[in-house]
Amino acid sequence: MDFRKKLRIGVIGGAKPGKKALETAYQVGRLIAENEAILVCGGLSGVMEAASKGAKDGGGLTLGILPGVLPYEANPYIDIAIATGLGYSRNSLVALNADVLIAVDGQYGTLSEIAFGRIYKKKVIGLNTWAVEGVERASSPEEAVEMALGNR
Amino acid sequence: MDFRKKLRIGVIGGAKPGKKALETAYQVGRLIAENEAILVCGGLSGVMEAASKGAKDGGGLTLGILPGVLPYEANPYIDIAIATGLGYSRNSLVALNADVLIAVDGQYGTLSEIAFGRIYKKKVIGLNTWAVEGVERASSPEEAVEMALGNR
Amino acid sequence: MDFRKKLRIGVIGGAKPGKKALETAYQVGRLIAENEAILVCGGLSGVMEAASKGAKDGGGLTLGILPGVLPYEANPYIDIAIATGLGYSRNSLVALNADVLIAVDGQYGTLSEIAFGRIYKKKVIGLNTWAVEGVERASSPEEAVEMALGNR
Amino acid sequence: MDFRKKLRIGVIGGAKPGKKALETAYQVGRLIAENEAILVCGGLSGVMEAASKGAKDGGGLTLGILPGVLPYEANPYIDIAIATGLGYSRNSLVALNADVLIAVDGQYGTLSEIAFGRIYKKKVIGLNTWAVEGVERASSPEEAVEMALGNR
Repeated sequence: MDFRKKLRIGVIGGAKPGKKALETAYQVGRLIAENEAILVCGGLSGVMEAASKGAKDGGGLTLGILPGVLPYEANPYIDIAIATGLGYSRNSLVALNADVLIAVDGQYGTLSEIAFGRIYKKKVIGLNTWAVEGVERASSPEEAVEMALGNR
Repeated sequence: MDFRKKLRIGVIGGAKPGKKALETAYQVGRLIAENEAILVCGGLSGVMEAASKGAKDGGGLTLGILPGVLPYEANPYIDIAIATGLGYSRNSLVALNADVLIAVDGQYGTLSEIAFGRIYKKKVIGLNTWAVEGVERASSPEEAVEMALGNR
Repeated sequence: MDFRKKLRIGVIGGAKPGKKALETAYQVGRLIAENEAILVCGGLSGVMEAASKGAKDGGGLTLGILPGVLPYEANPYIDIAIATGLGYSRNSLVALNADVLIAVDGQYGTLSEIAFGRIYKKKVIGLNTWAVEGVERASSPEEAVEMALGNR
Repeated sequence: MDFRKKLRIGVIGGAKPGKKALETAYQVGRLIAENEAILVCGGLSGVMEAASKGAKDGGGLTLGILPGVLPYEANPYIDIAIATGLGYSRNSLVALNADVLIAVDGQYGTLSEIAFGRIYKKKVIGLNTWAVEGVERASSPEEAVEMALGNR
């Protein structure tokens, strides 16, 4: 279990998405784990929780970077919860700790994470999310994870 | 000089804009001051400095919230420099400390500030900047500042 | 009103001090203002509010750096309130934005600010506060402010 | 490998300690791992690195919360590196992410982490470190780790 050498893929997206976005996030998380990458996310509900559940079902490791002061506020599928106490300023840390980001759906919090991803020169892949310059669109969870792995 | 009751207008935009964006930022800053509002910005160069210079030429007060640890790194038109030492995470603080934001030009840093503005439910007005949902477009510095003042 | 050239003196101390500490803080704030320095503090109650009131009674400018997201949570004697949304991590910013610090009474929050003051190589002066290495003791508000001004 | 249920013990201390402090930190880290707890630290050199090496030699998991923006700046014994980009403000996060803290030697950075530990109501155990109220002294690595585990 050498975590140092594993790719870290961030999954960003809203806390209150629709059913389809949750399914997409679950598949993305599962594929991340099946490809031996670590899932990084904001540690809360919605897209974050669905992706975390997928990653755990795929046998992977999950890392959640939380806005609050209590590690125990993470969703139940987070292995390593990091409390920051920074509120929304923690969005910057989600982007910093991923080698590449996949955005699924999402509101303004997700937009801020896309922006930080680009500030830090990370590749940002989008699945039905904000259509802004610098986001590379994928059409399926499979394609998004392949792009994140650098295979496409 | 009761600063507590004055409206705070944030001006956000890139550190390396073109000539036209600099002129726009200068006019926005000047109009902010002439309308007795306080200018809030990131305290550095480009749009931030041009708007600060405009605000000082208009006799106003300028507040710069810096990414680094030294208040003295602010541009020369900042009256009150706040050092944060937070790097780009300070972008959240720029949005928090403005009642309303005007975006001029800008790259991904500006996009993150637009996103934080919307997270915190602030009105965000745009002048030749990111065309994302939630940014209300203005066509001139005069219109942007009128919108920020709530007159339009 | 050239704020850029004025010395900034930070006053740190607890939110729930005894009566004597409040009087001390008030005097410190008043002397800071009478000596044309700017008062920097955490913007809330207790020592912070007493020092701010003193500074306003002395005709000075007060700067409050808050843990929360609302500038309007500052005590009524703060001229320029800076919201950070960082919780206790904002203690670092109080130290960063003062040229020199005066600690009055205080609990662990004050201890963290003393530590940050020393991390950032600021002079830290103490009035009935934590007796740790690096805190220079003063025996009165007058002496503390004289030391902060560099006159002793 | 259910990391969620494991105790997290933070080890705090200076980046440039003497030889004896390094040996102490190594033993503390090793004992943390042998007792199936997770080591949390600031991820850099000195006490942080020695404790991390001890924890890895003891077969444990190490978590490093860094001041910079690059996870790869962590010392070679950190399994999970968290980049914050917050500079010294990250000291608050080290305290937040430990259930209990052991301080070994240390300068002002360590003092700030002791203070944050107490702000957040964590037990803080000291081994030849700052003698401030609220730090419970231990006389050996064994005793310190036993105290952290709640056995004494």
